[in-house]
Amino acid sequence: MRIAVDAMGGDHAPDEIIAGALEVLPQLGQEDSLLLVGPQELLEAKLAAASYDKERLTIVDAPDVIGMDEKPVDSLRKKPRSSIGVLAKLAKLDRVEAVISAGNTGACVAAFQMRMRTLPGVVRPGIAVVFPTLTGPVTICDVGANIACKPINLYQYGLMASIYSRHFLGVQNPRVGLMSIGEEEAKGNEIVKKTRDLMRSDPRLHFIGNIEGRDIFRGVCDVIVCEGFVGNVILKLTEGTVDGLFRAIKQELMQEKPELALMFKPIIMRVYRKHDYNEYGGAPLLGINGTALICHGASKARTIRNAVLTAKNCHTQKINDKIMECLSEARTSDGEED
Amino acid sequence: MRIAVDAMGGDHAPDEIIAGALEVLPQLGQEDSLLLVGPQELLEAKLAAASYDKERLTIVDAPDVIGMDEKPVDSLRKKPRSSIGVLAKLAKLDRVEAVISAGNTGACVAAFQMRMRTLPGVVRPGIAVVFPTLTGPVTICDVGANIACKPINLYQYGLMASIYSRHFLGVQNPRVGLMSIGEEEAKGNEIVKKTRDLMRSDPRLHFIGNIEGRDIFRGVCDVIVCEGFVGNVILKLTEGTVDGLFRAIKQELMQEKPELALMFKPIIMRVYRKHDYNEYGGAPLLGINGTALICHGASKARTIRNAVLTAKNCHTQKINDKIMECLSEARTSDGEED
Repeated sequence: MRIAVDAMGGDHAPDEIIAGALEVLPQLGQEDSLLLVGPQELLEAKLAAASYDKERLTIVDAPDVIGMDEKPVDSLRKKPRSSIGVLAKLAKLDRVEAVISAGNTGACVAAFQMRMRTLPGVVRPGIAVVFPTLTGPVTICDVGANIACKPINLYQYGLMASIYSRHFLGVQNPRVGLMSIGEEEAKGNEIVKKTRDLMRSDPRLHFIGNIEGRDIFRGVCDVIVCEGFVGNVILKLTEGTVDGLFRAIKQELMQEKPELALMFKPIIMRVYRKHDYNEYGGAPLLGINGTALICHGASKARTIRNAVLTAKNCHTQKINDKIMECLSEARTSDGEED
Repeated sequence: MRIAVDAMGGDHAPDEIIAGALEVLPQLGQEDSLLLVGPQELLEAKLAAASYDKERLTIVDAPDVIGMDEKPVDSLRKKPRSSIGVLAKLAKLDRVEAVISAGNTGACVAAFQMRMRTLPGVVRPGIAVVFPTLTGPVTICDVGANIACKPINLYQYGLMASIYSRHFLGVQNPRVGLMSIGEEEAKGNEIVKKTRDLMRSDPRLHFIGNIEGRDIFRGVCDVIVCEGFVGNVILKLTEGTVDGLFRAIKQELMQEKPELALMFKPIIMRVYRKHDYNEYGGAPLLGINGTALICHGASKARTIRNAVLTAKNCHTQKINDKIMECLSEARTSDGEED
């Protein structure tokens, strides 16, 4: 398969992105190739000293870059030759089967949606992030693709994320929880209440009902469905809380028992690594017609390497075929037609 | 002042509530009294062995209890003599200046709003929780009173929480951040965008713009404004993340270096206590005509003791007078009338 990687996306581009691509190339099959998308001259210079299979790693020129803070749609219009824009075009023209970027998330979602389109039956795609927890990986969808969710969107996120959890993470019968402000039936806003009715009436979903913020790390479910605004806050807050807590522990150690700090560091590092969602290599934009992975802005070579392997795995597992099959059944069982 | 405490609210009622009341009574002034609200016989039996000033700690009979999972409005209608219902009635009849409960949050908000009413100028009250962080206390409003927020509600939460932060926490010129999904202007949903315009046009607010989930523990602002659904997820997720992380560290220690675990425990306990929002003793329902504090369902005696001291402090600081003054100016400057 052919995978296009945005060489200019994220805080550590292009060096870390290139490093990740070079690192993962030998781990792919001979039939797989990578396309690094970015300013030709810059990338050529960066690759000049590297030794790699030049047949399977090529450069696609994209002279412009969309900044992390630019307005998604405006920037795509103004910079059609940006790396994100070119990435989306490559997918549209069937020149690649997968795209990967650690760049501006909003611009990625807008570009991929516009060019690649959604799978038949999918109303709006959603970004799914996998959180590693003590009790196993938890998939949260959506974390920011759709900040004006309707019940049908949330319901479809539940179906798509269940398929991802089952076929990509190997969770047999993923339990689905709906993020709300209390476990009780009566709690939640109107969208939550309507989504709950949709989810409950679909026997293919292993729906466990409402969950609360505190349940994410408690192992009560394998898939969490929420509106993109809330999901984005969850994603970033978890990151911030973990960082803040580690800093607080460090400060306390240095003040009270500096001799303990050194002994304790490897423990913290191990916990950190086990809870690092970069391990899962990029968040899939579920529901898009193709394979698109969006990586954290702070992505390093390891994240990019993992994202490439994730893209390959999604493709091999035919996640999209399973989503289409599921949603066409859903429509039939609802008595709706296209 | 007279403070009514719901003896039946929370997971550890009535024992911990009673213990908290007994503990704080000697710390109050001779002019202050506590009213414990709950089933008369039960409370009498519990207090029988205790020695306390019987003039200043009395029982008010409320035979019914609203469970943590009951529907707020329904349960209040069905159980007018519940402890929460009686609490609200005492405030309405001016028999107390403050009410405190660790019971069903939804029922508290509904009862207090219905009976006590809002302060002149306040459209909807909001619950403010103080998060202790390494860089100082951060006040978040709303965390669950209002899950259908309009821009005017969020704007008023910014004003009211700023007053609380200034006069209760002693933050000189509280910086206000609006929770969104990116710091950039362009990001956020329609409500966030409209709220930003309202906040920016009010020079009395030290408004710093949008913030993200990861900023809460970074010391970028002193007040965080968000919609009740999002705020409730933030509150519970933070709790869950901290618990989950401590559990992960413990597991790692026990597996790898059990001899370190004991040495490390006091460090963790100190960090835990420093980040424990129970220290701030209850979350005020800002904008209500009176003083109402809502405590965590897991409240122990210490939380109740702190909540009583908080209620006294809010009353002494005349937080409500300051809110009314501020909002009447806001209305005048907007050219609006009642």
